[in-house]
Amino acid sequence: MIHITLPDGSVRSYDHPVTPMEVAQNISEGLARNVLSALVNDRQVETSTPITEDARLQLLTWNDNLGKKAFWHSSAHLLAQAILDFFPEAKLTIGPAIENGFYYDVDFGGESISEKDFEKIEKKMLEHARLKSEFQLYPVSKAEALKIYTYNPYKTELIENLNDGEITFCSHENFTDLCRGGHLPHTGFVKAAKILNAAGAYWRGNEKNPQLTRVYGITFPKQKDLTEYLHKLEEAKKRDHRKLGKELGIFTFSEKVGSGLPLWLPKGAALRKKLENFLQAAQQKAGYEMVVTPHIGHKDLYVTSGHYEKYGADSFQPIQTPNEGEEFLLKPMNCPHHCEIYKSQQWSYRDLPKRFAEFGTVYRYEQSGELHGLTRVRGFTQDDAHIFCTPDQLLDEFKKVIDLVIYVFNALGFEDYTAQVSLRDRENHSKYIGSNENWQKAENAIIQAAEEKELKTVVEYGEAAFYGPKLDFMVKDALGRSWQLGTIQVDYNLPERFDLSYIGSDNEKHRPVMIHRAPFGSLERFVAILLEHTAGDLPLWLAPEQFIILPISDKYLDYSKKVLNLLENSDICGLIDKRAEKTGRKIRDAELAKIPFMLIIGENEENTAMVSVRKHGEGDLGAMPVDDFRKLLEKEMKV
Amino acid sequence: MIHITLPDGSVRSYDHPVTPMEVAQNISEGLARNVLSALVNDRQVETSTPITEDARLQLLTWNDNLGKKAFWHSSAHLLAQAILDFFPEAKLTIGPAIENGFYYDVDFGGESISEKDFEKIEKKMLEHARLKSEFQLYPVSKAEALKIYTYNPYKTELIENLNDGEITFCSHENFTDLCRGGHLPHTGFVKAAKILNAAGAYWRGNEKNPQLTRVYGITFPKQKDLTEYLHKLEEAKKRDHRKLGKELGIFTFSEKVGSGLPLWLPKGAALRKKLENFLQAAQQKAGYEMVVTPHIGHKDLYVTSGHYEKYGADSFQPIQTPNEGEEFLLKPMNCPHHCEIYKSQQWSYRDLPKRFAEFGTVYRYEQSGELHGLTRVRGFTQDDAHIFCTPDQLLDEFKKVIDLVIYVFNALGFEDYTAQVSLRDRENHSKYIGSNENWQKAENAIIQAAEEKELKTVVEYGEAAFYGPKLDFMVKDALGRSWQLGTIQVDYNLPERFDLSYIGSDNEKHRPVMIHRAPFGSLERFVAILLEHTAGDLPLWLAPEQFIILPISDKYLDYSKKVLNLLENSDICGLIDKRAEKTGRKIRDAELAKIPFMLIIGENEENTAMVSVRKHGEGDLGAMPVDDFRKLLEKEMKV
Repeated sequence: MIHITLPDGSVRSYDHPVTPMEVAQNISEGLARNVLSALVNDRQVETSTPITEDARLQLLTWNDNLGKKAFWHSSAHLLAQAILDFFPEAKLTIGPAIENGFYYDVDFGGESISEKDFEKIEKKMLEHARLKSEFQLYPVSKAEALKIYTYNPYKTELIENLNDGEITFCSHENFTDLCRGGHLPHTGFVKAAKILNAAGAYWRGNEKNPQLTRVYGITFPKQKDLTEYLHKLEEAKKRDHRKLGKELGIFTFSEKVGSGLPLWLPKGAALRKKLENFLQAAQQKAGYEMVVTPHIGHKDLYVTSGHYEKYGADSFQPIQTPNEGEEFLLKPMNCPHHCEIYKSQQWSYRDLPKRFAEFGTVYRYEQSGELHGLTRVRGFTQDDAHIFCTPDQLLDEFKKVIDLVIYVFNALGFEDYTAQVSLRDRENHSKYIGSNENWQKAENAIIQAAEEKELKTVVEYGEAAFYGPKLDFMVKDALGRSWQLGTIQVDYNLPERFDLSYIGSDNEKHRPVMIHRAPFGSLERFVAILLEHTAGDLPLWLAPEQFIILPISDKYLDYSKKVLNLLENSDICGLIDKRAEKTGRKIRDAELAKIPFMLIIGENEENTAMVSVRKHGEGDLGAMPVDDFRKLLEKEMKV
Repeated sequence: MIHITLPDGSVRSYDHPVTPMEVAQNISEGLARNVLSALVNDRQVETSTPITEDARLQLLTWNDNLGKKAFWHSSAHLLAQAILDFFPEAKLTIGPAIENGFYYDVDFGGESISEKDFEKIEKKMLEHARLKSEFQLYPVSKAEALKIYTYNPYKTELIENLNDGEITFCSHENFTDLCRGGHLPHTGFVKAAKILNAAGAYWRGNEKNPQLTRVYGITFPKQKDLTEYLHKLEEAKKRDHRKLGKELGIFTFSEKVGSGLPLWLPKGAALRKKLENFLQAAQQKAGYEMVVTPHIGHKDLYVTSGHYEKYGADSFQPIQTPNEGEEFLLKPMNCPHHCEIYKSQQWSYRDLPKRFAEFGTVYRYEQSGELHGLTRVRGFTQDDAHIFCTPDQLLDEFKKVIDLVIYVFNALGFEDYTAQVSLRDRENHSKYIGSNENWQKAENAIIQAAEEKELKTVVEYGEAAFYGPKLDFMVKDALGRSWQLGTIQVDYNLPERFDLSYIGSDNEKHRPVMIHRAPFGSLERFVAILLEHTAGDLPLWLAPEQFIILPISDKYLDYSKKVLNLLENSDICGLIDKRAEKTGRKIRDAELAKIPFMLIIGENEENTAMVSVRKHGEGDLGAMPVDDFRKLLEKEMKV
């Protein structure tokens, strides 16, 4: 008998070798219709691959990432097939699935492919797909494989690097490719196809090798999915924070200052400041104390903290001094500085928890090729804080931090999040610092805190850092993309390394526990996510300007200034469009600048002490007294 | 005839060699009584030194720094004389005047001097002084001088380094010393003397040489002056910002983080933040825009700005990257970054002035021996701003900056200041960058702005930087000490080096002018000065906490918390002294912590919904309803 164990723990027994598809059919016809691929003992196989002994089986559908992978890898075969239909001399190389879709690297020889070819290739792919040809994977000897590919130096090179006996080909319809496997049952699942792009790529990524053309495509089981995907792609382009950041005057980069070192323009600096003030007020209520520390520290500091050993070689190198032989480092983290502040006096258990917070700018070296707008930079400001508490205070502190993080998310319009809890390896406890008792306390505290706060939680064993367990928030933005925000990390290591202590009620010295936490993570990355999430339509209270006054001619400038003065205060900021442009043009420009409210001012408005209000993206709200508009603003400003 | 030209331009003629004292007597007996020393053709001489040819003469009194110098240098002779009275075997070395007083380095041989000797030495000095012995300077040949000092290796070494013919001795009463000159007419001017300190010092400052004892003293023409001086010294000690900073929990240093790199503790960070918010609000009203820039920049940036060439070798050395061969520098100034922000778009004359402001933390290397609390550090935050304007806007911008600086000074309790205007050398214009026309415009703008704002002004020719004229505010603190605060600097250089431009009304490109300005200078230094000026009694609105609640027992903790909640808001911060201490002790501690208001709460207060208010340093204000206290606070908080 062959015993097949399914993910829910149930076991099905067969007296013959069985394929994943047969198991699916035994479970239900509906499931069988949706199965795209399968994992047997964690290895991805064809749905037609016979299982010959006891095994764990996971059936994969479109909802599984590995299901999508099989879908897109199979689609790469369809793409190659269609390319050969139009470019019979083209030489194929490799065609993997990627995060969104797939590509195929092709040597088009003397010919070339261009956007005008895309549509006919898409059509041809779907023509082939509709035939529902089965994908058939079969072994080929190395000699045979080399013979078949004599004409193709790329495939020849690939085959030469494989061992005889592990080479397989995959065929469907009239098309065959060297392939390791992981396909759909048949081509008929592919109902929508789009060629996205064609770009140069070197064979094996080495610029000394011949240049190939990488053709990117994506496919879906439904036309609707493709339409949605293309819409999101379009939206993501429009929302790209690098584009919005430029259009809205949020930030810029200068080659002279250096890549990855953002310069915050006035509107960006105002936005940052508002985020800082918002968080600082919330933190003050929650008992945090702000501190300010320098952006460098003695190399010794990071030797003590362990950061130098871990990151020293790959980061900004030490700063020498002209004499005195001192060495400083740009600070990669704020925690060592906060440990030194904690150490500046002897605390008693009655003083704890101490919660030191800082908008601390840190510098970490990244390869220039890895830099990306505000999401991957070389200098960024963490909304950092370190809580020093007794082990018994952990649960309470964790709950308070969760409250704070959720308050921040909600205030900023992020409502879809899950908590990922990273704990120790279940079996091997030896690689973690700190006593077993304290770890259990900390892990229980995190789990209990997440439960009490009713978080959607995923627990990952073995994902804890060696110095403590943690909780990360995974937040979905308006386009459904997931971002990691809001880390809460327990740390037994730094208190040890810095020899931190407090005097307990027993009058003895004890080691405090540290919690690192940052609701935004970094202001840079958070602003990038916020811009993309809101498409630049920031919440009213965060907008650099709340309103713009559009006088219909110079005659109303004085009244415009009066209105501006009446409305502006420390939270509300406005401006006047003094240009000699038509009102229609001024409205269009204000809409493009995404300014929340437009106040149109002409003779009527001045005579009646009113303003005519337009709301960005919504249109005319009619005329109202200035004070009514102020109240409207103040009401909508509430976080 | 010998013509003597006095500082007012008047000329006195003599048919014989004349001494400065004789000229003084000719002018008035009163003046002659006060003359301490003289400058002949800018060289300091004795008042008895004959003038044998035409010369410029300046008579020096106690009001001149060089008059004080003669006074204190002569007092060093009195000190040495008195020391020999008690320690006849002591060997004298050198005894100069210093900024406040004088010292004499003495080799006491087997003996030693201690504080208990000070008083008898002071007495002896005054005994000698009362004799009104004249100081007589006379030439001695090198051979003769060496013979006289055979017993003293220090004087011998000094004499050996002098040329024969330029060696002089000075005698008064029974005391003679090797000396260059610059004495009082006679000892009788010295009416008050104090030995301040005795400390070790190496001969010629070299630790390989024998150790001497440096005896510090100060003298005055009136006992009252000494009393005042000692009082100020005492006050200055009490007000030392390093002492106050520790006592009030403002800042600390950590050897691990590095000398000269302050760590701002919660109360200090709150103080900083209040200063920042205060200035930012004032700057926003004045049309400034905040920006945020990184703390490092490519070396190229500072090569372009010229800072690397000028400061590179003496400052923190370049930061290497692991690969890519890039070099970054810790930023010593914010201006290059702001130039790059200006350059991020093309401005029109209609956009100017642009005023970019930043609380920008900069790093400059200082020798560890030169570091001093917060006044001399290696990292500090400038309240920096750069105004980019057309040459025609300079006057207006200068006036606005002066308004802002004065507003800041007044709000912070500095009311005694003068403006020092630094202009070009009157004769040599060649060493300055920028056109003559623009310089004239800028110099006139500064002078006119200072006049229109009715500033007490001192004009210094030749003190301008090569790149532009400037105005510095010299501010007197509560102890009468002068501090340079609030620099305003015109700059023609950086716009040139960064090739900055704006499009003029003629549609052509023009070069803007830059103004650097910083009312505080740096937050670190300003906080130091503010602490010393106020002796830690910060203005109410700047205090980290405005009040402390002192419940007379635990029973009133709940009501105390209620009161705290009623009073606290974003500007007002309070705390509760929950310790189980007697109220008297709590009051004493609150007074020491310099918390502006104490609210004492017991049964009466709780029953009547009142608080009993004590004001720091003033005492009981009586009981009042909580809301009345809130109003009192709010009224006193107004800047």
